Amino acid sequence: MTDLQQDQEAAYALEGAAARGRFVLCCEHASNHFPARWGDLGLDAPARSAHIAWDPGALGLARALAARLEAALIHATASRLIYDLNRPPQSPGAMPARSEIYDVPGNRAITPEARLARTEALYLPYHAAVSAEIARRLALGLRPVLVTVHSFTPVYFGRPRAVELGVIHDADPALATAFLEEVRARTSLDARLNEPYSAADEVTHALALHATPMGIANVMIELRNDLIATAAQQEAMADQLAPALTAALARLAETEEAA
Amino acid sequence: MTDLQQDQEAAYALEGAAARGRFVLCCEHASNHFPARWGDLGLDAPARSAHIAWDPGALGLARALAARLEAALIHATASRLIYDLNRPPQSPGAMPARSEIYDVPGNRAITPEARLARTEALYLPYHAAVSAEIARRLALGLRPVLVTVHSFTPVYFGRPRAVELGVIHDADPALATAFLEEVRARTSLDARLNEPYSAADEVTHALALHATPMGIANVMIELRNDLIATAAQQEAMADQLAPALTAALARLAETEEAA
Repeated sequence: MTDLQQDQEAAYALEGAAARGRFVLCCEHASNHFPARWGDLGLDAPARSAHIAWDPGALGLARALAARLEAALIHATASRLIYDLNRPPQSPGAMPARSEIYDVPGNRAITPEARLARTEALYLPYHAAVSAEIARRLALGLRPVLVTVHSFTPVYFGRPRAVELGVIHDADPALATAFLEEVRARTSLDARLNEPYSAADEVTHALALHATPMGIANVMIELRNDLIATAAQQEAMADQLAPALTAALARLAETEEAA
Repeated sequence: MTDLQQDQEAAYALEGAAARGRFVLCCEHASNHFPARWGDLGLDAPARSAHIAWDPGALGLARALAARLEAALIHATASRLIYDLNRPPQSPGAMPARSEIYDVPGNRAITPEARLARTEALYLPYHAAVSAEIARRLALGLRPVLVTVHSFTPVYFGRPRAVELGVIHDADPALATAFLEEVRARTSLDARLNEPYSAADEVTHALALHATPMGIANVMIELRNDLIATAAQQEAMADQLAPALTAALARLAETEEAA
């Protein structure tokens, strides 16, 4: 095995490739692992476990959703501070020198060559894997839809956030709006459209790469991370959200048939 | 070397990877080669050399442009009838059973497994290569822009076409409109916006995959193939179009600086 292949294997994990449900789940900020190749970016252990390094609870929630939806799941295996897979390579946010209230010393004076190395080792293999999973399912007639699973911090720049579930869309809002209506009908979650982030904040890069050009339904879901901190919370949240996703997709199918 | 790697190498060619101009050129319909793996799809030699199998002259023009623009060039190495790289895998046009006035017997009763095999062998490696070339250049700060180079038949369903140069855009029309103005000021070509095809005809898939989500300037150019049939015509056309592309890009840069 070459070094390049090792890098590619390290950049992502694919679970449920044989699953035949329509949902493909992605989790760009699944991990706060700092592989030895990239070092710790000068961050201490508390910073490396904070929300700036990953989306706490997102991977557990994504796995719990995948089990209920018979979904494939692709997730990152390294911290977003090494490369934020939900940003294109030229974005300052791809390798941020500062994230919320934290400095990231290892990203402060990053060279073009280092940006290239991280892009090739992390961004390209992750997104090639997502592209391949979606293209394969499209070729087979499985009509995939894409859901990206994220979490956000309950306190941001010192201010508490009331929103519990953010439902965010890229160019096509159909699945997002249907899902939001199902969530509001079925749960007591404080769910809001395009909060606490929206496409204007660059957070729909994965949707824009993999769903919009393929013409497939898609939505990004953002959970406040205090609601999915434990495995039990993640399972309970998936029990609420999986039926809402299924119902939202069914509603889209009805609209398509009526059109 | 594995079979998969052989397939991937066969799916595209990259020329000028070391070129450091801003333009990245793509040519999805460069070839009318039918690799032995896929057979001739039941087509006779005249059909395999007709415009349904490829865009005659497009690769020669793209190479002539690349030389003048210090551009990288990625092009297909197999006929579009095996897989039309400018279409997503679920599109009937990706492996068309009929193209203009020709039946394509080998695509008539294509199975999901065969669609998957062509998608994995042709679509995925070609587009992974384009993604990688653009991402690498973005990481290095080279500010790439994407131009896809195509040709169209002078007679379509028996009707002659007057348009000589089609300038087609995806979501962002900036480079297309600037290029069209430069062409009209500099040449006597009958150049038109979004003719003979437009995004509504699915022809901007490559732009939608590789330029729109990255926020980079892009345009598709379509030449009537009787104008670029010979090497001499391709060189002469590149002499006209390369300065117009350069001037259009410079005009965009002025707009960005003024903003």
